[in-house]
Amino acid sequence: MIIIGEKINATRKSIAAALEARDEQHIIKITRQQADAGADYIDVNGGDPREGQEVRNMEWLVNLIQASTDRPVSVDSADPRAMEAGLSLAKGKPVMNSISLESEHLKPLLPILEKHECMVVGLLMSDDGAPTGVDDRVERTAALIEKFQACGRKMEDIIIDPCFFPLSADPDCGRAVIEAIAAIHRAWPDVHIGGGCSNISYGLPKRKLVNFALLSQAIFHGMDVGIIDPCTPGIIAATLAAEVVAGRDDFCMNYVTAEHEGKLS
Amino acid sequence: MIIIGEKINATRKSIAAALEARDEQHIIKITRQQADAGADYIDVNGGDPREGQEVRNMEWLVNLIQASTDRPVSVDSADPRAMEAGLSLAKGKPVMNSISLESEHLKPLLPILEKHECMVVGLLMSDDGAPTGVDDRVERTAALIEKFQACGRKMEDIIIDPCFFPLSADPDCGRAVIEAIAAIHRAWPDVHIGGGCSNISYGLPKRKLVNFALLSQAIFHGMDVGIIDPCTPGIIAATLAAEVVAGRDDFCMNYVTAEHEGKLS
Repeated sequence: MIIIGEKINATRKSIAAALEARDEQHIIKITRQQADAGADYIDVNGGDPREGQEVRNMEWLVNLIQASTDRPVSVDSADPRAMEAGLSLAKGKPVMNSISLESEHLKPLLPILEKHECMVVGLLMSDDGAPTGVDDRVERTAALIEKFQACGRKMEDIIIDPCFFPLSADPDCGRAVIEAIAAIHRAWPDVHIGGGCSNISYGLPKRKLVNFALLSQAIFHGMDVGIIDPCTPGIIAATLAAEVVAGRDDFCMNYVTAEHEGKLS
Repeated sequence: MIIIGEKINATRKSIAAALEARDEQHIIKITRQQADAGADYIDVNGGDPREGQEVRNMEWLVNLIQASTDRPVSVDSADPRAMEAGLSLAKGKPVMNSISLESEHLKPLLPILEKHECMVVGLLMSDDGAPTGVDDRVERTAALIEKFQACGRKMEDIIIDPCFFPLSADPDCGRAVIEAIAAIHRAWPDVHIGGGCSNISYGLPKRKLVNFALLSQAIFHGMDVGIIDPCTPGIIAATLAAEVVAGRDDFCMNYVTAEHEGKLS
């Protein structure tokens, strides 16, 4: 499982406050906590409605995060200027998070994707709105893969985010997204699949239980990327256990190793 | 989810000791704990190698359990005499646990099944041994269903136990059993599927994590019976959360109701 630590996001109050105050220590702390908990990438979102501010936030964050960990960043913005700024500063092979099929979004971001050596998250939103079933998710995946390949991306550089929506609004949306994951995995076995799945439990009590159940079912069907908070107690252990049951952990080695390293507690 | 509480089993030391001492209070306590935790049936296994002793144990247990709860019993024995004794005393509609395709086992138990109004667990063991894949599990299910129907059983009275084996011995056996559950559920949607699944984590650390991951994946594919210890902290909540994600809980009502009743904590 590839873990993208989602915590450094300006929609979180403590991150917005740290951005405003340019509080380096808070950002360093959250970065290291996520890396220690198992994040393979550190997601960076410095969203800010003030003109030019998101670019400045992104530059400050990427530099600061890269000075405090060796994990690559996942540059997360809807603003092409902030995306370009983040990817230009990024070391190693970062993630571009994300490009959807919405034309206003797609058009300015594809040239940036073409320019940078990075992985890319393809989000299945389009001008027709959010996906609702399996077929539309598969069709949109095909369309995004075609565009990403035209930008020089290999299958293994692509992460498809199938869009997780709240079960509290539509109790059938869990089955739909999981069956879509299975269909996408069958059609493009080398493409990565995953995204911010905690949305699924929005509006429900004891959200962690729902999130862990979703992770287990989605991992069985081919999800191999989680944009999650790796510091949530038990979440890394839950993904490792799900991989064991799904036959995605040869000889249970990752799971047993994690136990020896004290990471299952 | 139909929960069969598995704790009253003579292979457990405390139950063997209670049987030996005819300690009514211990059996009553374990019975009520399981009923309070959410057991729909109380499994009763009084296995004992001494001649005639298992029948005496079964009679004592069934009478005692039925005096302490209104949940029906699940009569669990490999000994046809103990099975007959338990089912003869059982009130309501009990479960006969279990009948396999092993001919020495099948032959004496089918007449007992024919005689009693009960549900029946069909275990996919045969004279060829344990099942290993999907196809053999589906074939054996077909064979058992045919025999159970010949004994007057309806589809909804049948529970197929697909046989859960330890992942530590065969890391692919999780995927095999889950895909078999999916295939059985597609072929016979009214037949119940499930069994004693905690076996899957035998030999692995933090077994609960593996068991919960398995439950979530299996529930997605159609498992609707658990022969489990309902007193395990979090296990009922985990099954309820899995049902929500799998679209098996209309409007998330069971899950939200459980929260209101304090059963998700």
